[in-house]
Amino acid sequence: MVHPAISETAKAIKELKIQGARNIAERAVAAIYSMLLDEKEKGTEKEEIIERIKEAVGVLAKSRPTEPALRSALAYVLREVTRLKDLPTGIFTDALIESLEKFAERMDETEKKIAEIGSGLIEDGYTIITHCHSSTLMGIFRKASEEKEFTVIVTETRPKYQGKKTAKELLEMGVKVVYIVDSAAYYFMKQADIYMTGADVITADARVINKVGTALIALAAHEFGVPFYVAASTYKFDPATVLGFSEPIEERDPAEVIDPKELKGAEIRNPAFDATPPNLVSGIISEKGVFSPYTFVSLLSSEKTIDPQLETIIKLAFNR
Amino acid sequence: MVHPAISETAKAIKELKIQGARNIAERAVAAIYSMLLDEKEKGTEKEEIIERIKEAVGVLAKSRPTEPALRSALAYVLREVTRLKDLPTGIFTDALIESLEKFAERMDETEKKIAEIGSGLIEDGYTIITHCHSSTLMGIFRKASEEKEFTVIVTETRPKYQGKKTAKELLEMGVKVVYIVDSAAYYFMKQADIYMTGADVITADARVINKVGTALIALAAHEFGVPFYVAASTYKFDPATVLGFSEPIEERDPAEVIDPKELKGAEIRNPAFDATPPNLVSGIISEKGVFSPYTFVSLLSSEKTIDPQLETIIKLAFNR
Amino acid sequence: MVHPAISETAKAIKELKIQGARNIAERAVAAIYSMLLDEKEKGTEKEEIIERIKEAVGVLAKSRPTEPALRSALAYVLREVTRLKDLPTGIFTDALIESLEKFAERMDETEKKIAEIGSGLIEDGYTIITHCHSSTLMGIFRKASEEKEFTVIVTETRPKYQGKKTAKELLEMGVKVVYIVDSAAYYFMKQADIYMTGADVITADARVINKVGTALIALAAHEFGVPFYVAASTYKFDPATVLGFSEPIEERDPAEVIDPKELKGAEIRNPAFDATPPNLVSGIISEKGVFSPYTFVSLLSSEKTIDPQLETIIKLAFNR
Amino acid sequence: MVHPAISETAKAIKELKIQGARNIAERAVAAIYSMLLDEKEKGTEKEEIIERIKEAVGVLAKSRPTEPALRSALAYVLREVTRLKDLPTGIFTDALIESLEKFAERMDETEKKIAEIGSGLIEDGYTIITHCHSSTLMGIFRKASEEKEFTVIVTETRPKYQGKKTAKELLEMGVKVVYIVDSAAYYFMKQADIYMTGADVITADARVINKVGTALIALAAHEFGVPFYVAASTYKFDPATVLGFSEPIEERDPAEVIDPKELKGAEIRNPAFDATPPNLVSGIISEKGVFSPYTFVSLLSSEKTIDPQLETIIKLAFNR
Amino acid sequence: MVHPAISETAKAIKELKIQGARNIAERAVAAIYSMLLDEKEKGTEKEEIIERIKEAVGVLAKSRPTEPALRSALAYVLREVTRLKDLPTGIFTDALIESLEKFAERMDETEKKIAEIGSGLIEDGYTIITHCHSSTLMGIFRKASEEKEFTVIVTETRPKYQGKKTAKELLEMGVKVVYIVDSAAYYFMKQADIYMTGADVITADARVINKVGTALIALAAHEFGVPFYVAASTYKFDPATVLGFSEPIEERDPAEVIDPKELKGAEIRNPAFDATPPNLVSGIISEKGVFSPYTFVSLLSSEKTIDPQLETIIKLAFNR
Amino acid sequence: MVHPAISETAKAIKELKIQGARNIAERAVAAIYSMLLDEKEKGTEKEEIIERIKEAVGVLAKSRPTEPALRSALAYVLREVTRLKDLPTGIFTDALIESLEKFAERMDETEKKIAEIGSGLIEDGYTIITHCHSSTLMGIFRKASEEKEFTVIVTETRPKYQGKKTAKELLEMGVKVVYIVDSAAYYFMKQADIYMTGADVITADARVINKVGTALIALAAHEFGVPFYVAASTYKFDPATVLGFSEPIEERDPAEVIDPKELKGAEIRNPAFDATPPNLVSGIISEKGVFSPYTFVSLLSSEKTIDPQLETIIKLAFNR
Repeated sequence: MVHPAISETAKAIKELKIQGARNIAERAVAAIYSMLLDEKEKGTEKEEIIERIKEAVGVLAKSRPTEPALRSALAYVLREVTRLKDLPTGIFTDALIESLEKFAERMDETEKKIAEIGSGLIEDGYTIITHCHSSTLMGIFRKASEEKEFTVIVTETRPKYQGKKTAKELLEMGVKVVYIVDSAAYYFMKQADIYMTGADVITADARVINKVGTALIALAAHEFGVPFYVAASTYKFDPATVLGFSEPIEERDPAEVIDPKELKGAEIRNPAFDATPPNLVSGIISEKGVFSPYTFVSLLSSEKTIDPQLETIIKLAFNR
Repeated sequence: MVHPAISETAKAIKELKIQGARNIAERAVAAIYSMLLDEKEKGTEKEEIIERIKEAVGVLAKSRPTEPALRSALAYVLREVTRLKDLPTGIFTDALIESLEKFAERMDETEKKIAEIGSGLIEDGYTIITHCHSSTLMGIFRKASEEKEFTVIVTETRPKYQGKKTAKELLEMGVKVVYIVDSAAYYFMKQADIYMTGADVITADARVINKVGTALIALAAHEFGVPFYVAASTYKFDPATVLGFSEPIEERDPAEVIDPKELKGAEIRNPAFDATPPNLVSGIISEKGVFSPYTFVSLLSSEKTIDPQLETIIKLAFNR
Repeated sequence: MVHPAISETAKAIKELKIQGARNIAERAVAAIYSMLLDEKEKGTEKEEIIERIKEAVGVLAKSRPTEPALRSALAYVLREVTRLKDLPTGIFTDALIESLEKFAERMDETEKKIAEIGSGLIEDGYTIITHCHSSTLMGIFRKASEEKEFTVIVTETRPKYQGKKTAKELLEMGVKVVYIVDSAAYYFMKQADIYMTGADVITADARVINKVGTALIALAAHEFGVPFYVAASTYKFDPATVLGFSEPIEERDPAEVIDPKELKGAEIRNPAFDATPPNLVSGIISEKGVFSPYTFVSLLSSEKTIDPQLETIIKLAFNR
Repeated sequence: MVHPAISETAKAIKELKIQGARNIAERAVAAIYSMLLDEKEKGTEKEEIIERIKEAVGVLAKSRPTEPALRSALAYVLREVTRLKDLPTGIFTDALIESLEKFAERMDETEKKIAEIGSGLIEDGYTIITHCHSSTLMGIFRKASEEKEFTVIVTETRPKYQGKKTAKELLEMGVKVVYIVDSAAYYFMKQADIYMTGADVITADARVINKVGTALIALAAHEFGVPFYVAASTYKFDPATVLGFSEPIEERDPAEVIDPKELKGAEIRNPAFDATPPNLVSGIISEKGVFSPYTFVSLLSSEKTIDPQLETIIKLAFNR
Repeated sequence: MVHPAISETAKAIKELKIQGARNIAERAVAAIYSMLLDEKEKGTEKEEIIERIKEAVGVLAKSRPTEPALRSALAYVLREVTRLKDLPTGIFTDALIESLEKFAERMDETEKKIAEIGSGLIEDGYTIITHCHSSTLMGIFRKASEEKEFTVIVTETRPKYQGKKTAKELLEMGVKVVYIVDSAAYYFMKQADIYMTGADVITADARVINKVGTALIALAAHEFGVPFYVAASTYKFDPATVLGFSEPIEERDPAEVIDPKELKGAEIRNPAFDATPPNLVSGIISEKGVFSPYTFVSLLSSEKTIDPQLETIIKLAFNR
Repeated sequence: MVHPAISETAKAIKELKIQGARNIAERAVAAIYSMLLDEKEKGTEKEEIIERIKEAVGVLAKSRPTEPALRSALAYVLREVTRLKDLPTGIFTDALIESLEKFAERMDETEKKIAEIGSGLIEDGYTIITHCHSSTLMGIFRKASEEKEFTVIVTETRPKYQGKKTAKELLEMGVKVVYIVDSAAYYFMKQADIYMTGADVITADARVINKVGTALIALAAHEFGVPFYVAASTYKFDPATVLGFSEPIEERDPAEVIDPKELKGAEIRNPAFDATPPNLVSGIISEKGVFSPYTFVSLLSSEKTIDPQLETIIKLAFNR
């Protein structure tokens, strides 16, 4: 029997009642946390708890198989389980509870660290071009705005206009904003000193999966010798890709693009992401530092070969 | 005293009462045609007529200095004047009237020829990616659709959604349409066999000026080895660029992008065009055939050095 | 009623009794020449003769629609008809007979001229890499070998091993030969000073169609900064491509690649040519000089727009 | 005195009586294994055994200095010696015997793991292009064929036609095969979704050494945006390259290319491999996962600086 | 007997008493002009005069076979002879005298025209990077400086520091100058809006031969999407390259680089020029307009095939 | 109170009395070493000593913030402090003294190791192109010259002509030298087999910071498929760049370029370094082996996340 916290959260995610990458991630971890509290009260054995967690991860992962942040959060839980699994039951449960309790907090610390590091890449007087909205990147902009003057060229980011949110927050910080349609990125690229975005997922072969359009603009940046830096905490690395699972690209509601009635007979496609190859990315700004995507992956993968248990869980969870 | 047909047309263009590239071009030629009929009736001498035309060209050109089609149409008039200027007055006037009378008709013939030639590039089963709306390109699609089945990936083309018009016309032809946001062009490029657009202007150094975003998508096409063909009649060649005049890129009303009140303090930019360098263009489909941009320009420029009179007129007209 | 010289020659070409690009070209012209002699004797009128020629061109063109040399030879005949068509009947016929009589001879002169010009590109001590066998290119090597020492890296050119012929002729000239499999071209490219091949067809958008593998090796040359020069007389330019007709790539007998019985169930493909894009070609060595592909096409196309009669004949001939 | 198992195996390798990369590797390890059994019976001391192994490695390595698989297998033995060398003699010998005994078995497990991981990269309906024959890659194809339908474009791979073997095995799996000559790879690349090969060696600076032609086709893949994945177990990494020893490219019998009598006077060259630079390789599929070549090398080299003993042995073994 | 004006001028050029590209060119033409005046007085026949000119051209061309400007000037004389050679003797001589008399003047007009056209490419506020010193380019800068403010990054141009001359003249015009060593061009390229140089020769395959370093900096410009425009009058086109004669690169006195005594045993090399391939050049600014190098060559070569007489003379003159 | 050894050394560095990268580095370490001896004598506590070291590092780092070798040496000291900081006071102090005492010696060993490894990349008969002077690279050349014959193309390296030193040392080794101006690198690149330089700093995102011009020549090497290897010990890795601190490029005295009086009004710029992006670098030759820049950074960064103490010290030291 799946714990109600899990099944309800999964249902809410499936029915789009919970939305937004980080929100979904935190709510999924919170559900497992709730379940753990109950199991602790019941004094459930470690082995049993681990089984329940695997099950929970499987249920949650399937609730939105195209949301990379959800996958990353669940992979985090699994990594913590693996890390702690040799402890005695009581200590294990407490340690895991504590770890999950601090998930959101830790993400805040991570963001803060990235903000501090990333702001070093922005020099006074710079013109930055960005795409979509990334809270991690906004942290960098906020930090940098405390000491430097710079301008950000913001693309509106069709179809959901996340650029508007980016622009508004920048204006509130007192940062100069140039607001353009997505396809004007080539036209304005010569003026840019640096191209910066967030990321949804970094794959094992070092590609950056982010809001559709990111790769297209990366080509323009490359054409004008403008370096491209991606703000992404290490938990954006998806271990499933190590095993050759290709990252599925979510296709969202066509109605976000256009009312289908307006174009009867047309196939309206709305992929949410694209994948930028690593040769177009100068560096990833994570809480570990600023490294090329190749090094970023090396740092996260170097300690050991794939943990067999983790591998089994991944396969279970992602039903592959 | 400027002829009323000229001044009124110029005013209507300036006040945006006349809109649309081809419409503006034809109305400008029509205004000069009207003036010519009057001058003929008055029996004005050739030299005087030429002066009036120069003046008219100047007035009209200034009414919308960023509309390339208008520049091209006026250049056409000037070329006709040059071509006919050694004829005796009566014959000159009649010949010029006849020539201008046939301006729209000749454009139709040109379009038809391009449709026929361009349809040869579309093979049965092809997937084509396109951007914005070009009546010249629609002619090619229409012609090809009579004999072949193919799919067109249409970008919506922000900010004015001309892609919607393109999609609707294709659906009416019975052509399969995939409709996407502009920035999804990279994501879908691997599926494309060919990238095709229209053009607003071809410069002397062989760049293709077209709807903003054209160059960005051309980079993606290049990345995937997808050839890029541009449908453009020879009158899209702008002789002013031979003389080093750089093509001004029109910046349109920011409100087309976003209601400025929504982003107070932001600079909203709305350039209408960008310039694709010739190394990203496989060929231009004109009424003279399918040639690389370099050859296209060579064919149009080879006959002679710059005609000094044409040069003078261009400078007068464009106030430089 | 098609003239027997035409129908028999067409049949022999269709049944592969006549083979080899230049041989097919010369025999096709010779057949029209025979027919012309008969018509002259019969005193046929010019208009009638032209009709017969169009018909003959149509029949011959269809006998081997994938042999570009045949298309080029027939296009030559058509151009000569166009050039002479305003002469009175008697003079027209004589002039055309004389022109066709000299077809082979003129090709020899052309080859000689190319040999002379092309040998200037080979410097003493050079290492040249080549692919397949081209009699035009062999003329250049022969001429150069009279004054200079150089080495030619020859690819065997699967599936028909034309490289063997190239190697043998070079050895007879006393030129040093390095003989390799096709796929070793990358390995040896660093040693090469220049990459040289012949060509079957140059298209209006400046692509070079030549033996399959030419484009692949051109990529390697580009990677190592080795310039690529193509030896091709101007009659290799295919006017049909101006009209958007894409050059069909001949697929030859799979048995040339492998005995199909050895690989039952496999689809064996044997395309004879590939198309090298012009940005990979430094120059075309023709009897008019050494020019970039773009300029080469410009020189051949600049005089006029497409001759309407030629266009009609091309369409008839190529059944499109 | 070199142990007879060593000297005889070395002789058989030298005289080509033992052939095939993996076969040579396993037979060399088996020879050392035999020797170890004898030494164990004799109760030889650890230090002495290690000396004998070094000697054996030297003899075997020189028997075929251009066979990378042999080098890799010997490096494996040396790494095992290093790993176990601090154990007491008896345990050391037993552990080493057990390790070598399982060499072939471990390679099987490795291959199985790679098959599983690599099959994830093949999507239903894909068209894959490959070159030569790699048993590791065949494992991937076999695994993938159990669940998905796909087509493989197979190059014949001159001069030894290993493509034929690849094609036959694929046909037996029920996979669709398109069989082409090597130089047609450019022509067919547009149709491919992915380019996959095996590898003979991965160098410390992340280059992939594989059958001659691999790099050439990689250029074509790059031109069309087709990702290139290489199937290679981690034992393909050559530690000698860390020390700056450049990987020697074996030149095989010219008679494999052509009977030298047919081309008297020509230098016939037959390099077996070429080196693809890492920027053309999207990922290496190893038993550790799918990583870029840069990360692959990082994972294998990160634990420590070069082991001085290993270094000494390598130098002895490779006589440098 | 060679005319004394010819032999003395040739001697002075050979002994470096006459220096500087344009100076040499004008003095060579002046020598032929002197000779012509004498021949006119003597009433020499046209055929005889033409022979004398051919002889003179040969003598002068050999006086400095590596000075492209000299070759261009002599080619100009030969083209004028060809153009006028069908006139009757008297008129021929007078026309030729008049033409040569105006050589310098025509060059001035050409420069003025280029200045006017080229200044259109410089926008207010631009940063331009340049290399070496070109009087043609200085004309453009002078013209532009009358209306606009801009900054020029000037490379010193080793070994002769022509950049110093460029910088001084710019400072006199009131233009802002940034002065750097040649190898800092990459470092400053991001700041540049345009890269501009002069040219010594344009070849038939559209390469730009200019001061050594031009191509190197062109690579940097390409890397940062900075367009490269070359100021060059049409007489910089070298017709000898049409015939496959490769442009010889002059090697100047090693002592310009370093006192050879300082580096005994070293080979000191001092090539004066390098050749920039046309794909790195956005346009050539000539008196005919701003065109890509491919179009520039097309415009100059399109009228006719190679004039046989010109060809003979070229070969005689250049002793090839 | 800052220790006099520290303050005096800092003063001497500031006033340019101590010059040369390695000299500055060794003198800075020596100053801290002196201070440590005093502290040991005084029996200062570990915590106090660490405070003094931090202070000293801060003072020294600020004495020449643009000298990367100084930063690297100080980072080395800090790393040693971190490594030893858990030892008891007495042992800590002794261990640190010993470590610093051996700084120069260890650098010698490192150089020797690099020489040995790097010489493996130079094959007999090679032509190498290099820029500036690097003692590390000279070690490689010296080692290689003992066994092989090769030629080195040496750029003079404006403005300080370090190439002269390189050339002289090579001539003394008996190596053939071709000496050229910097901007001739493109002209000679086709002849090179390999491009090799030293490095001042390797950043966390894998860029190579070296003498201005290095990146420019790297572009030319890339154009001709010439691999670029950089000789650099691991202590050239700058940990500050991990934290997003951008490497400041030193601007040296303009008078090195030209006497400012000669160009009154010009801005003379003299950056000492440029940054080559990692995609232009084939490998870094360090004492750990030959690895791509990405792997080089991975190896140095993989062990752990950023040490918080190290981070604090870095920030203090570099006043950021």
